[in-house]
Amino acid sequence: MGDERSYPYLLRRNTIRAGENTFSHPWNPQSEITGTHLSSLAGLKRTGVSLVRIPAGKESFAYHLHHREEEWIYILAGRGIALIDGNEYELGPGDFVAFPTPSVPHNLRNPGEDELVYMMGGENLDFEVADFPTLDKRMIRRGSEVEIYRLSDARPFEMPDS
Amino acid sequence: MGDERSYPYLLRRNTIRAGENTFSHPWNPQSEITGTHLSSLAGLKRTGVSLVRIPAGKESFAYHLHHREEEWIYILAGRGIALIDGNEYELGPGDFVAFPTPSVPHNLRNPGEDELVYMMGGENLDFEVADFPTLDKRMIRRGSEVEIYRLSDARPFEMPDS
Amino acid sequence: MGDERSYPYLLRRNTIRAGENTFSHPWNPQSEITGTHLSSLAGLKRTGVSLVRIPAGKESFAYHLHHREEEWIYILAGRGIALIDGNEYELGPGDFVAFPTPSVPHNLRNPGEDELVYMMGGENLDFEVADFPTLDKRMIRRGSEVEIYRLSDARPFEMPDS
Amino acid sequence: MGDERSYPYLLRRNTIRAGENTFSHPWNPQSEITGTHLSSLAGLKRTGVSLVRIPAGKESFAYHLHHREEEWIYILAGRGIALIDGNEYELGPGDFVAFPTPSVPHNLRNPGEDELVYMMGGENLDFEVADFPTLDKRMIRRGSEVEIYRLSDARPFEMPDS
Repeated sequence: MGDERSYPYLLRRNTIRAGENTFSHPWNPQSEITGTHLSSLAGLKRTGVSLVRIPAGKESFAYHLHHREEEWIYILAGRGIALIDGNEYELGPGDFVAFPTPSVPHNLRNPGEDELVYMMGGENLDFEVADFPTLDKRMIRRGSEVEIYRLSDARPFEMPDS
Repeated sequence: MGDERSYPYLLRRNTIRAGENTFSHPWNPQSEITGTHLSSLAGLKRTGVSLVRIPAGKESFAYHLHHREEEWIYILAGRGIALIDGNEYELGPGDFVAFPTPSVPHNLRNPGEDELVYMMGGENLDFEVADFPTLDKRMIRRGSEVEIYRLSDARPFEMPDS
Repeated sequence: MGDERSYPYLLRRNTIRAGENTFSHPWNPQSEITGTHLSSLAGLKRTGVSLVRIPAGKESFAYHLHHREEEWIYILAGRGIALIDGNEYELGPGDFVAFPTPSVPHNLRNPGEDELVYMMGGENLDFEVADFPTLDKRMIRRGSEVEIYRLSDARPFEMPDS
Repeated sequence: MGDERSYPYLLRRNTIRAGENTFSHPWNPQSEITGTHLSSLAGLKRTGVSLVRIPAGKESFAYHLHHREEEWIYILAGRGIALIDGNEYELGPGDFVAFPTPSVPHNLRNPGEDELVYMMGGENLDFEVADFPTLDKRMIRRGSEVEIYRLSDARPFEMPDS
């Protein structure tokens, strides 16, 4: 076996667990998600992959859609209810869901008694717009700078007297 | 629960299994990998995610590196030996390995008695160059068109008498 | 000489003149610009190049900045006054001005008695945000779909009780 | 008028002339081109624009095509003969030619007694492949690293016994 320290982009199971953080989306009091951003720890710049888990009764983020960034989830353990474009879908281990762009809105909750464990990933773009239709919010992000608008404040671009 | 047929990008565990294909890389007689290209089945254009498995004694592809496309693997079950830049690393469930670009060469084999099951993913770019250093080959791909050169035939771009 | 009809991306001077359109930006009553979008007529997808002219006393567009798309101008004939980030610069034939992104706001006017003729170009991206700071407007464009917000309505993304 | 030193991306005609360099493509003894890379001097990262001139009897580069980078030229003064995909086209002031990708091979020569002056531009990508079909060469460039192959050494990627 080679010297494992010589390849910095190999993350061991224990390292991954030790690197966990818990996040609650400020716009959803039910949001609570714990996990590790594998891809950034392992040097990837444009690809996102995370290993995450949601406690019983909690939700992932806030119901949102992406204009540009592709996104996917793959269920490893537990049960989830995905709210996708107004419909609910029950998910279990081995199910995969993707969100081509521009995506429909979605969010995930854990309705069960066990932890919901899954992988999620997608694109990391420098510039993204995400909408939160039930909250009437639009998020514009450039790098790490974020600005929020009221989604319903959007106006068309109209030509004069036409 | 909503009508599941209304969201085409949800792939059920059984659908994923039924969609498997087996691939053997033509340049490695030990290559044998079976799996499903989840991301393309689920409508993603720029992001690759696959669920794959390698039988005992077999290998994933051929020892290669990518110039442009980021790549990652995450082990779900079984044991693997990753050959990365000339060193071997034993991998087990829960280990994650990434290959930032330009990447070092790598390949994966299943040394054990059980199936090796993992997820792999990364970028899907229109234009890619991949090198196979032990085979002395360079692969240039534009869309689905592929051309092969002998890697060692590369010459510098030299200015005359300077 | 070859058969000229055999290369569709060669645009003759006369064809370019015949392909002119006049545009007035709806947010600036002084805007009046006439020209030909050379790059799209000649098959380019990601690069913009136009040959344009502004009559005496008129302006190009409305004072704006780009978040993502690089932009440049090169003066061929006449005199111009470029308003760039609050300062005015007099421009004449042979002068070149570029706007790396995120750019500072700018606009061009023809103060003279002769026509101002120039080339302008840059990137054509699928997704762009442009701000019009003196008009308090932000334009979000995806493909040809445009939405307008009031720039000053932007709010920070704040974590609760932090 | 504002303080001109306050906007670094404005290049005056005289500065542009003073910034000229002469380049002869090492693979074409007839190549001689003098000019200024306006876009890089003015801070652009992804867009190329140059003001260039070719003396009587000389040529621009070597007959080549681009796989990825869009390219264009616009004639300002003099006469040129463009060799495009095996056909010759006479060009004069006000003519525009573009090369959508993957492009057909092309080169430009000055057949006349006067200098040929033109603008050229296009995309600046990190990774590019350019072919020189009459020289049987393929150039692979990553950033500023360039490697050359013999174009005719390309082999198909074949599956075994198929």
